[in-house]
Parts: sequence; structure tokens; C-alpha cells
Amino acid sequence: MPDPRFGFRVTYTEGRARAGIMSTAHGSVETPAFMPVGTQGAVKGLTHRDLEGLGAEILLSNTYHLYLRPGDDLIARHGGLHRFIGWTRPILTDSGGYQVFSLAARRTIDEQGARFQSHLDGSAHLLTPEKATDIQARLGSDVAMVLDECLAHPADVRTARVSMSRTLRWAERARTRLLELRAGPVAGVAVTNAGQAQFGIVQGGVFPELREESAAGTVAIGFEAYAIGGLSVGEPTDVMYDIVDRTTPCLPDDRPRYLMGAGTPQDLVEAVARGVDLFDCVLPTRNARNGQLFTSEGRLNIKNARHAEDESPPDPDCACYTCRTFSRAYLRHLFLAGEMNAATLNTLHNLHFYLDTLRRIKDAIRLGRFETFRLAFHQRLSRLESERI
Amino acid sequence: MPDPRFGFRVTYTEGRARAGIMSTAHGSVETPAFMPVGTQGAVKGLTHRDLEGLGAEILLSNTYHLYLRPGDDLIARHGGLHRFIGWTRPILTDSGGYQVFSLAARRTIDEQGARFQSHLDGSAHLLTPEKATDIQARLGSDVAMVLDECLAHPADVRTARVSMSRTLRWAERARTRLLELRAGPVAGVAVTNAGQAQFGIVQGGVFPELREESAAGTVAIGFEAYAIGGLSVGEPTDVMYDIVDRTTPCLPDDRPRYLMGAGTPQDLVEAVARGVDLFDCVLPTRNARNGQLFTSEGRLNIKNARHAEDESPPDPDCACYTCRTFSRAYLRHLFLAGEMNAATLNTLHNLHFYLDTLRRIKDAIRLGRFETFRLAFHQRLSRLESERI
Repeated sequence: MPDPRFGFRVTYTEGRARAGIMSTAHGSVETPAFMPVGTQGAVKGLTHRDLEGLGAEILLSNTYHLYLRPGDDLIARHGGLHRFIGWTRPILTDSGGYQVFSLAARRTIDEQGARFQSHLDGSAHLLTPEKATDIQARLGSDVAMVLDECLAHPADVRTARVSMSRTLRWAERARTRLLELRAGPVAGVAVTNAGQAQFGIVQGGVFPELREESAAGTVAIGFEAYAIGGLSVGEPTDVMYDIVDRTTPCLPDDRPRYLMGAGTPQDLVEAVARGVDLFDCVLPTRNARNGQLFTSEGRLNIKNARHAEDESPPDPDCACYTCRTFSRAYLRHLFLAGEMNAATLNTLHNLHFYLDTLRRIKDAIRLGRFETFRLAFHQRLSRLESERI
Repeated sequence: MPDPRFGFRVTYTEGRARAGIMSTAHGSVETPAFMPVGTQGAVKGLTHRDLEGLGAEILLSNTYHLYLRPGDDLIARHGGLHRFIGWTRPILTDSGGYQVFSLAARRTIDEQGARFQSHLDGSAHLLTPEKATDIQARLGSDVAMVLDECLAHPADVRTARVSMSRTLRWAERARTRLLELRAGPVAGVAVTNAGQAQFGIVQGGVFPELREESAAGTVAIGFEAYAIGGLSVGEPTDVMYDIVDRTTPCLPDDRPRYLMGAGTPQDLVEAVARGVDLFDCVLPTRNARNGQLFTSEGRLNIKNARHAEDESPPDPDCACYTCRTFSRAYLRHLFLAGEMNAATLNTLHNLHFYLDTLRRIKDAIRLGRFETFRLAFHQRLSRLESERI
């Protein structure tokens, strides 16, 4: 019983690649889409109007961080995350699971959920599938994710199966909780977005048969849409592509598919070719802060001495504010001088590159030229990256 | 012999307050004007387009920092500071003197100039009046400042006189050097802005008779315009106002007057009332990064717990992007979470407040209502600041 306020319509296809429109309680998103990561309710280094100017249609925010600070109760008192952070377009929140599992020594997992200590003050918390659902109900994101167990890589098939099965049971509990919240008031849970959708997550490590079983079980529970989790965690690229390739056919065609945490620009192109519609990744924003720029000619480290006198823009093919206005020499100066806006200008460029790559992909699919685009994209990058240091 | 490419025209006066237009090689500036401080060729936390959006018409940049990194030679090879940093409007550069004098234990002064060690790598440098002129010629700012000796506060009258006299001799040397550069090519000095103006600086500590002597001597040398230096360095506010009050009548009416390094919003209003036209100060930008906002109701520390649930904007009377879009609660969250754009959003607001205060002052002078504005401005702030913690 998917919520009718959430919708998805495929508008063009080429092979398994699709262009479409996902509609949410806060407006629609053209897919394939990249979601910039705004961990604590803000994309690091950018203002919301910067993001709007880049054409970002949906923002990802992190439940774990917002739960700890400023707190989901406080955000609910402000009418939900959109109102609290002043962002009017769609928001997807993760479940908090990935961050909790990343705490390593400071967390333990059992059937009930994940016990962890806050990275801020060491306070003890228990995150269950129900609680992750409640927190996101208070945040009022347009898309909530179920709590899943994030398997470390590498894991053997037995461990992967145990974890996958638990994720299925947790998914069932999370869905049950969401349906309770939709059915009527639940004490202590202020639902701030009645049209919130919930996505299930396929797990199963690098084992195709587990992925198929996980997909079948998750689809059987019934969510507004489905994500592929547990990839882009250190496995080889061809393994990731292979798992995506075998998983997307197990997911319904009329629902968006979200590949969590991926990836490089090349990964995006390859995942779209395999039927993926949604992406999020910290690469463009985190690497920007470290001085690494993604360009049509490959990656560029702005701090390299060879840029010291270079008057050319970071990417000669780019129309972003940074490339239209500034030289590599100036951006290198800002980075070495420790100026904050080095991060801002680099982030503006990297996000523009990601969002623009997806716009080009969409246009190519509409025109039936996606395979041509895909080939040219890889050829240019591989040729140029091999020429560079 | 002032350079004809630099001009100043008083358009309205009320008492000693003036509104005017300063024209430079990169366009004109309406006065009274506030110059945001872009120490290393960028205002901390903002992009140039943010500044343009705020209506900033002129930027201040620091010779000391740019000389050390990336170097004035490199900037000259890029065609000057405007081209290097991608800022098309006017730029004023200080002489580097203030930063060198702030190095305290790492500098010595004699008649020749100031010897100092770089704060970056400890390398030894000598800054003379001629060298400060040459560096700024390479930077190609629209307004260059002469190297002056920055007296520490407090200083006795004898020390202040010795220092003031040396500043006069240095001003003479700086002007001679500039005229040489204007007259024809000088080996090793690439002049990147032929229309660069040079301002002299009045010193003399807190002693009115020394200020008068300094003003007379500086005007006798002949600069495109004149600044009042060595104030806003720890002396009581009424002493600063008194020195400004006695100095501006000693400076020509048909030239802009620049009060260096001041100040609070109240200081700006009071200095305009005494005939000042130009200002620069790190207060709005530095305090923003520390979470302090200047508002029509006084100063506001965004990190205070009382803002935790406050849905109102920082300043209810403000039309800036930050106040139009965000609540105190969200800005407090961003600040406590260590998000970079806390600095950006706070800086946007503070600079808007400063620039807007000067726009209101200009409008008031044009309408003959400056005295009314001045009274209301102080009354509102003093009433509200006394009500707050």
C-alpha cells in the first residue's frame, strides 16, 4: 500500500537506463538525480541558495547527526526539518544506521537494534527499526529510509546471510511502525510530514543469490521504493557494478531505485546504465574541501605546484560560477592560504559537475543517445587521466 | 598633482556630514562607504558574488599578506590583483604597515623602514616606504596607502611626535616613489594599474596639535586623498571622536577622508557626522565568525541557549538573505555543529547591516534628515542594549 502522495513515472528509457520524475510532498525531482549530502541540515560550505542555483532538486540529511544535535524533538517543534533548515524542496533522510555502524568500538548490535555511544558526549542510545522510523517521522523528510544492518566488507557468505535476514526482519518492523504512524496519532511521535515515503533497502553483500533473496523479501513487504545498500564500501568497482546489474531486475520497474553512497562520476554513469535512478555521495563535497576537483578531464588537485601560475579555469568545459570567474592559480592561493571560500568555490564546482553529469545523462536518454554519451564519457576520462600525473 | 583618473565629488551635505561619489580606475563608489576586508584577496566566508549581491562597491585587501603569499610578482604576472582574484570593482590596499607593526617581537623599525620576519616561514624582510609603494603598484589596487608608523596606544606626546614626524618623512618618500613610477618605467616594477591613486595618512596619536601638524604636512605633500590612521587601537571612544572631530577640518573638503580600521556601527555614524567618507573594519566579518551578529536591536550572540528554540530571524528589521530565510534556532545549530556556513550566513548578515547602515546614512544626508537618523539610531541601540543581557 504505497502512499499516493509519493509517485514515480518513467518518461524515457534506453536499454535499462531510465529518465523519470519522482514526486514527493515537497515537489518533484527529475531522475536520474544526485542528492547532495547535508549531514547536519546544511551542505558543508554552501548556502541553500547556492544549492538552488546549482539546480539541486533534493537534499540528503543524516538522521544520526540530527537526532543527537539539535534533536528530532526540537526539529519537530519547529514544524519539521524543512521549516527548521529553511529548505523548501524535497529531503531524503537516511536511517542513521550507517553512521552507527561506523562507530565500530562504540556500538553493539542485537536483534532489537543498535546500541551506541554518541560521538559528541558519550551518552548511551538504542536505535531500533521503530525508533529510526519515529525520528524520521519527527524530521518529516519526504523520503525516510528503513534501519538496515550495514555489513562490513569483506564478509563471508554465512555472515552476509545472517545480516541480510536481520535487515529483512528490521524492514518489516520499520514498515509496521510507519503504517501505525500513518493510521493515527501515536503518543510521543509528532508526524511533521504526512506524505512521507519510506524506502526499503536491499542488502546481501557481494553475493548475488543473497541480493536476489533480499530484494524479493523487501519488495514483498512493500515500500514506496527501494534502495541498494552495502555497496561502495571497499569492494572492487566491477563487483559493485555486477551486484547492481543483478539486483535492479529484481526491483519493480515502476518504482525509483536508489544506489546508496555511490560514487565516482563513472559509477553514476554505469549505475544509470543498469537501471538506477537516485544517488548520494560525499565524494564531490568532501574532496572539494581537500582541494580535489572533478572535471571533464579527470581529477585535479588544486594544491599542486603546477597550478601556481595557471590562469585557466579548473575545467575549461564547465559553466559553473567557479570556472566562469576564477583561475586555478587563485583557487590554489585560497586553498594554501586556508581561506574558507576555497572549500565553497571547490564545492560549487564539484556539485555542479555531478549535477550537470546527471543532466547530460537525462538529456542523452531522452534523445536515445545514452550509449553514445556513456562511451564518450569514459573514453575522454580514461584518455586524459592516463596523460596526467 | 593628483591623478585625474581619481576623482571625488560631494553631492549632498548636512552639517559636516557629506554624501559623494569617489571615482577610480575600476568604477565609482558612493560615499560614505564601508570597505569589507578581504585580507588575502577574499572576504572570509563569502564569494565575490555574495559581496556584489550585498552591494559592496569597494574591497580592501592587505598588502602584507599578499606580498608574502602568493607574492606581488606573481599577482603582477597575472595582470594585477583585480584579474588575479576575479574582482572587477574598486580595490583599496593598505600599505602592510599595520600588520608589520602588529608582529611586535618579530620586527624592528628605523628610519629606513621596518624589518620583520614572515609569520609564515620566519624569512626576513625589509618594508620601506618605496617598497610598499612598489608592491602596491604591482598589485594595481585603485587606491594605495603610504607606509606609516603605527603608534601603539598609549604613547606619550614625545613618542607620538617622533613617530608622526617619521611618518611624514616616509609619506614624502612614498609619494616621490609613486611619481617616479607614474613618470615612466622603473626596472623591476610592473605597474598594473596606471590610474592608481595614493592616499596619505595623518598620525599623531591622541594629541590634537600633533594631528593638526601631521594633517598640514601630509596635505602639503599632496595626495589624491587622506586617511586618519592610528585610531580605533584601544583609546576611549570619546577620544577617538574628538580626534576625528579636530582632524577632518584640517583636510581638504574636495577629497575623500578615510578613517582607518573603525569601527562599530555607532562609530560609523559619529565619524560621518564629523566629515568622514570611507571606512574599513574587521568587526562585522570577524565577529560573524565568532557568532556575534550586529542588529538594529544591538549585538546578538547566536550561541546563547536562549536562541535554541527561537524561530525569529536574527534581526526582524533586516532584509538580508540570512534574516529572510533562517531562524536564530537554525543559525545557533549551525554554529554549535561547527558548520562552515554558520560563518557565511553570519557574515552575510553583518556586512549587510554595515552596508545598509551606510545606505541609510547616505539617504538621510540627501534628504537633510541625517541628524534625525543619527539620534534615532543611537536611541534605539542604547535603549535595546540596556534591556538585553
